[in-house]
Amino acid sequence: MLGPAMADLIITSPSNQRLKSLTSLRRRRSREESGLTLIEGFEELALALEAGILPQALYYCPDLMLDPTTQLAVVTDVASRGVETVQLGRAAFEKVAYREGPDGFLAVVPSVARACADLEVSPRALTLLCQGVEKPGNLGAMLRTADAAGVEAVVAADPVTDWGNPNLVRASKGTVFSVPVCSDDTASTIGWLQQRGIAIVATTPDTDLDYTDVDYTGPVAIAVGAEKYGLTDEVLAAAAYRVRIPMAGRANSLNVATSAAIVIYEAVRQRRARLRA
Amino acid sequence: MLGPAMADLIITSPSNQRLKSLTSLRRRRSREESGLTLIEGFEELALALEAGILPQALYYCPDLMLDPTTQLAVVTDVASRGVETVQLGRAAFEKVAYREGPDGFLAVVPSVARACADLEVSPRALTLLCQGVEKPGNLGAMLRTADAAGVEAVVAADPVTDWGNPNLVRASKGTVFSVPVCSDDTASTIGWLQQRGIAIVATTPDTDLDYTDVDYTGPVAIAVGAEKYGLTDEVLAAAAYRVRIPMAGRANSLNVATSAAIVIYEAVRQRRARLRA
Repeated sequence: MLGPAMADLIITSPSNQRLKSLTSLRRRRSREESGLTLIEGFEELALALEAGILPQALYYCPDLMLDPTTQLAVVTDVASRGVETVQLGRAAFEKVAYREGPDGFLAVVPSVARACADLEVSPRALTLLCQGVEKPGNLGAMLRTADAAGVEAVVAADPVTDWGNPNLVRASKGTVFSVPVCSDDTASTIGWLQQRGIAIVATTPDTDLDYTDVDYTGPVAIAVGAEKYGLTDEVLAAAAYRVRIPMAGRANSLNVATSAAIVIYEAVRQRRARLRA
Repeated sequence: MLGPAMADLIITSPSNQRLKSLTSLRRRRSREESGLTLIEGFEELALALEAGILPQALYYCPDLMLDPTTQLAVVTDVASRGVETVQLGRAAFEKVAYREGPDGFLAVVPSVARACADLEVSPRALTLLCQGVEKPGNLGAMLRTADAAGVEAVVAADPVTDWGNPNLVRASKGTVFSVPVCSDDTASTIGWLQQRGIAIVATTPDTDLDYTDVDYTGPVAIAVGAEKYGLTDEVLAAAAYRVRIPMAGRANSLNVATSAAIVIYEAVRQRRARLRA
């Protein structure tokens, strides 16, 4: 019942031309030209599907699946919705997989490439502004936190990486498809926030205001900056508050995604406390 | 004044035998047999030196240093304290470096391998208990947070990795040498905490108690478990409280290091609020 027969195509040769166009999506230029990106892994794909993303194509390898019976049902389901499905032999799949220990799922999906102007949020939105963050892993980690905390949107200002970066998609565990994201230049981002009356709370070591001494129950954007240099003066100047996370240690630096998580969950704490009051 | 003359030895050949014993420390068995580990990077080394760690040997490459004048002074200083210094040619250094874009500093230092019994903490200590955490990057990230938050000790129960793992050292930015750490089996760890009257606050999704509804101002150990499976029943049964971090999202999972940071900083918030009250 479930088997190779459902595939539109079967590829066993790792040197198949079609696989080359697939690996080309690891390059940013190819992603931008095609408007497509890759999502690897069953759980990540499941989250994207749940968020309403329909792949352009699904490449799968039954030999690599942890639970072929259940997981092939997802292939069948996706195929029934008109998605092209391509079954790969093990060697072919391992050629296109970008992570170690692939689990037999790789999909081509539309990139998320939205400008601020195309994103709407609720009146009391909690949002996250990431300016110039460099590492895809850090952006992915912040998306996971944003997803868990119910952050309404994550805005990348002057991003160094694109939302379709496969390492970002992987680090986000697929939440880049479930959390509304957009990217823009810093000026447009600040304008977008100001038009909506969203106060920027900028994290920086150069302030005496403790991050716990600010009210996050209104519309607010928590802002974090680049790993090395932090937020630019442009964002600091536009901020309603500049806050610091108290640090006692010798190294005196928290990872940017950790800092974001600490401040985001302070906002969640305050909002929950208000709801209970 | 500053120059190759200060080195005890100069190695230019990447195939030098001595370099092989250096790279062997990437293997856990070699680290355990020798009681030594590697620390790479100028900032990481500086932090370890500040924490009172004296390397067994320092390997350096002036060609790769970002700021040779200042940084060679550190080499001179370390050499004056009796540490063997070895200057490497660029090719030789790149052979032994384990990270991309090395900055010309690699030191051999004593491993941190302390059992709980050899660690003392203050009566109102805030500590972190990591049970079975697998990824060196997650342990390193938790050490950075512990350093920043003033966590007094990080205890690994039934650890999958050793504190000397080079990826852990790197992810910790050297804080593995500044934050007191130890490792032990789970039973001994629980015993150590109980003898000191340190209450375990166990993070788990299977509870209705919000992590913000617990008092962290007394002696407390925040406990986090393995990436996939969380804490074992042994720790959950020994816990004074089982707490959850509220999650609203689709993916419904925070990274273990992120979870630890959120709960640790809630403890910091409560302790600071009490001090100010």
